Amino acid sequence: MSKIIRINTKERTFNYSEPDEEFAGLGGRAFTSRMILKEVPATCHPLGKHNKLVFAPGLLAGTGAANSGRLSAGAKSPLTEGIKESNAGGLAAQKIARMGIKAIVLEDKPEDDKWFNIVIKKDSVEIIPAGDLKGKGTNETISKLWEKYGKTGVICVGQAGEQLMISASMQLADPNGRPGRAFGRGGLGAVLGSKNIKAIIIDDAGSKRVDIADKDAFTAANKIWSKALTDHPVSGEGLPAFGTAVLVNIINEAGAFPTKNFREGRFEHAHDISGEKLSETITERKGVVSEGCHPGCVIKCSQVYNDKDGNYLTSGFEYETIWAFGANTMIKDLDDIAVLDKLSDEYGLDTIEMGVTIGIAMEAGVVPWGDGKKAIELLEEVGKGSALGKIIGNGAAFTGKAYGIDRVPVVKRQSLPAYDPRATKGVGVTYATSPQGADHTAGYAVAPNILSVGGSEDPLKKGNNVEVSRNLQIATAAIDAAGLCLFVAFPVLDHENGVQLIVDLLNAQLGASLTTDDVVALGTQILKDEIEFNKLAGFTKKDDKLPEMFDDSFEPHNVKWGYTEQELSKTLDFK
Amino acid sequence: MSKIIRINTKERTFNYSEPDEEFAGLGGRAFTSRMILKEVPATCHPLGKHNKLVFAPGLLAGTGAANSGRLSAGAKSPLTEGIKESNAGGLAAQKIARMGIKAIVLEDKPEDDKWFNIVIKKDSVEIIPAGDLKGKGTNETISKLWEKYGKTGVICVGQAGEQLMISASMQLADPNGRPGRAFGRGGLGAVLGSKNIKAIIIDDAGSKRVDIADKDAFTAANKIWSKALTDHPVSGEGLPAFGTAVLVNIINEAGAFPTKNFREGRFEHAHDISGEKLSETITERKGVVSEGCHPGCVIKCSQVYNDKDGNYLTSGFEYETIWAFGANTMIKDLDDIAVLDKLSDEYGLDTIEMGVTIGIAMEAGVVPWGDGKKAIELLEEVGKGSALGKIIGNGAAFTGKAYGIDRVPVVKRQSLPAYDPRATKGVGVTYATSPQGADHTAGYAVAPNILSVGGSEDPLKKGNNVEVSRNLQIATAAIDAAGLCLFVAFPVLDHENGVQLIVDLLNAQLGASLTTDDVVALGTQILKDEIEFNKLAGFTKKDDKLPEMFDDSFEPHNVKWGYTEQELSKTLDFK
Repeated sequence: MSKIIRINTKERTFNYSEPDEEFAGLGGRAFTSRMILKEVPATCHPLGKHNKLVFAPGLLAGTGAANSGRLSAGAKSPLTEGIKESNAGGLAAQKIARMGIKAIVLEDKPEDDKWFNIVIKKDSVEIIPAGDLKGKGTNETISKLWEKYGKTGVICVGQAGEQLMISASMQLADPNGRPGRAFGRGGLGAVLGSKNIKAIIIDDAGSKRVDIADKDAFTAANKIWSKALTDHPVSGEGLPAFGTAVLVNIINEAGAFPTKNFREGRFEHAHDISGEKLSETITERKGVVSEGCHPGCVIKCSQVYNDKDGNYLTSGFEYETIWAFGANTMIKDLDDIAVLDKLSDEYGLDTIEMGVTIGIAMEAGVVPWGDGKKAIELLEEVGKGSALGKIIGNGAAFTGKAYGIDRVPVVKRQSLPAYDPRATKGVGVTYATSPQGADHTAGYAVAPNILSVGGSEDPLKKGNNVEVSRNLQIATAAIDAAGLCLFVAFPVLDHENGVQLIVDLLNAQLGASLTTDDVVALGTQILKDEIEFNKLAGFTKKDDKLPEMFDDSFEPHNVKWGYTEQELSKTLDFK
Repeated sequence: MSKIIRINTKERTFNYSEPDEEFAGLGGRAFTSRMILKEVPATCHPLGKHNKLVFAPGLLAGTGAANSGRLSAGAKSPLTEGIKESNAGGLAAQKIARMGIKAIVLEDKPEDDKWFNIVIKKDSVEIIPAGDLKGKGTNETISKLWEKYGKTGVICVGQAGEQLMISASMQLADPNGRPGRAFGRGGLGAVLGSKNIKAIIIDDAGSKRVDIADKDAFTAANKIWSKALTDHPVSGEGLPAFGTAVLVNIINEAGAFPTKNFREGRFEHAHDISGEKLSETITERKGVVSEGCHPGCVIKCSQVYNDKDGNYLTSGFEYETIWAFGANTMIKDLDDIAVLDKLSDEYGLDTIEMGVTIGIAMEAGVVPWGDGKKAIELLEEVGKGSALGKIIGNGAAFTGKAYGIDRVPVVKRQSLPAYDPRATKGVGVTYATSPQGADHTAGYAVAPNILSVGGSEDPLKKGNNVEVSRNLQIATAAIDAAGLCLFVAFPVLDHENGVQLIVDLLNAQLGASLTTDDVVALGTQILKDEIEFNKLAGFTKKDDKLPEMFDDSFEPHNVKWGYTEQELSKTLDFK
């Protein structure tokens, strides 16, 4: 992987270049965050001509390493107004890597209102009119592109991204040609939309797997790696059987399942929206209980959810989505929640942001608590582009301002996910301090807080949760650079050789002699780059905080948040 | 003036107290900004229970000093999310001062949705249900309160403040019982609304003028003072004859009259909306060309504007309002502009913010450029509380986000007023660096840039404009502390004794021996307090900048903005 493709979206031209020295050895999040820091003026308007949208596959992408198919996308976020890296499965990462492409960089912005697609092949880049795809949802967009280009990687926006809504996702074609995978968080769909790009088609015809320096060592390392993933009870049993929604009952039991816009920690109808119920329903309706989001996945936490008549409804139906549209809004009908997920994928919207936003609309009385049908109508406004849709599509902080609601669970304007920070304090520290804004995937302390994975740390007490969050944020950044699925963290944290398993893969692939210390250094450097960008953008320690609603105690644990700025400032206080 | 009245809006209780030592000798903006810094947690939600709304008359309020009837209001701004002081004329300041009240402080916030009025009399405070005033515009609100309480001071919100919109103003009864005066900027109406207060009634029956230490000296000083105001060509001739709209032709001629959302510096229909045309129209329709906004005003820049049938339409029809709804949106019909002003007063909205917001809505294609009737319909949505109204009522930065517009002229989320910063660079420096956000009144460098008042400084070159802005920001803060109308600055800047005239008034009133150095120190300290609050709220030098749209050059001067962060950082770099 050595080529960078830069596309000027104003001139509709492109060029190939070699990465500078400072990008050598960087992949995935390490690459995108470095490039955003180096090339994007931190105070620029995120939807203006100075922002860039960077796609970079992880270091292991395009190899046969299990679960190495994640693609990173980076930009200045229109939602947080800080740096953003979001990564996703689907088909694109491996295809990009196999074409020897290290990164695709979208620059500048058009002065007209013409929309284009970008088609990237092994030896060519075409920028061609989007035609009648403009205005279409992501299902139809991907279907039509597959009709034309075959089973390519597709990254596209729906109506939300076209409207530059700051909760807009970019959706990716999954292995079945459905938009079940997303660059969900931080509004990157609006950045693609601001450059008038409807879709990027990744066609790797004629390419082959990336070169491996030591094939035997790689095969051996990958065998141990795959086994570690399938042997662990979470990645090998819980996730394949119930999807990520296996967490509904677990987090609810732990009293950390945010209910009614984070008022309580348990939802009385949790069972109705649990992973067990999901799996049972899928089986009854002849859906698919377990499938991978990209080729080479051995965990297979994704699924196909059909409606009552057995027709396809949605896929990639995650715990956080079910929580956001479920307990958070008091909606208990799994079919309503599935329709909300489907609409989010169709319009290209972050499901976490939308669920929290609907909760805010319920606080404001726009929609009654727990009314799934009305919530669906509300989300449909986004597709219509009505004024109400413009409010909702811009997320929770925005909707809170529209209606004067001061109880809005966001950090750096990004909505909190499905774990109450008061009862999973390690995750709360991650929410508060991550340069990405509130994001469970930035340092998933739920593992030691609740799942007893990677040790155990009391979720209700401060204890060592600052250290727990720090270490997980560093490890996660490195995993995102490798292009690995985050769920490898479960076996890695519990395995006797832990991070060494990943180092062995990298060394065999690259012919390198990295150590686990190098992985820690890489993760640390990524966070430093991101923090530096945010500092240049005007962020301070004052932004590393939870909103004041978490000063209230909540049931069942009668516990408050309680961290001071001083305590939190130690989390990522790198020298 | 020695009493502070603190009102707990949750408990609906109040108490009297003496000011602490650190508030001694402070009035107006000096008082409000000090109290916000000392008592409001800087990172709190501006519409939450921790914010406070503070009213303080200036030091000279309640005396017979000419043009000393300004009242300051302070809070953490829901618009800028930094500190805010806004001051206004009307009847309230003098009445508050005459009752010996140094400040009125609204604290906490209700947990129910009941609305109240506060009635402040010489020896009592009543907190009584707002009844059917809830939902009413400010015209009817003030009328009904005058029917009940007589010609009292009234501070109230309209539908915008009730809806907690962050462009909401608080309107004040003028001497004719109309809501022509406003705490316009920074969304303080939303803060009053967040505390479920519809109106504050100031009834000073039984009070008398404030004590004057040296009456003879005061009378002598006031005579010189009044003469200085009426002798100066701006405050003595231009403003009484044409109102502030005298500036339309002047600023247009200077090529600094922002047209079509700051695309050009001249509006071809400027004459149709000029002060000359305004005065002529008022005369024809038997309105009032010149009246004061508070008793004791000798400048009398306000007016009564009637419709074509000679019926009252609006009053307090300012240059910035006429620009915002006129050149900025390409609307050239003065009657349409007057209706937009009337609606803004009625709903309680900042006219500058609304004009710029309508410009953004025009950028987005919601309303055609120059279409006054459609703009009126758009503004009426605010009164209706529709989703579109919720967007518009939250101002330009918010509306820009709703529609994905990156050409939004705001600093610290507050809209730029009626002077293009590229062609009035001194004002541009004020916009960028004032802790208040973009605000011409924070340091009105138009005086030396264009009016040749207080010297002369090239408006198109950097020159000494940083120093010009700094000195004016300091002087203005002191004037705001004294409770004087900003227009006294014209004669003060040009008078041989300048600031000494104000010092003489203060010394005679207080029996003090202040010097002009003390006035500079006071102004400087106010700015220091405000900058400190913003720093605690998370603001940095990165926030002291103009948006990137001003990197483009514009006609007729073909000039760009061009200041660096480094250059701007010297403006208020106090040790």
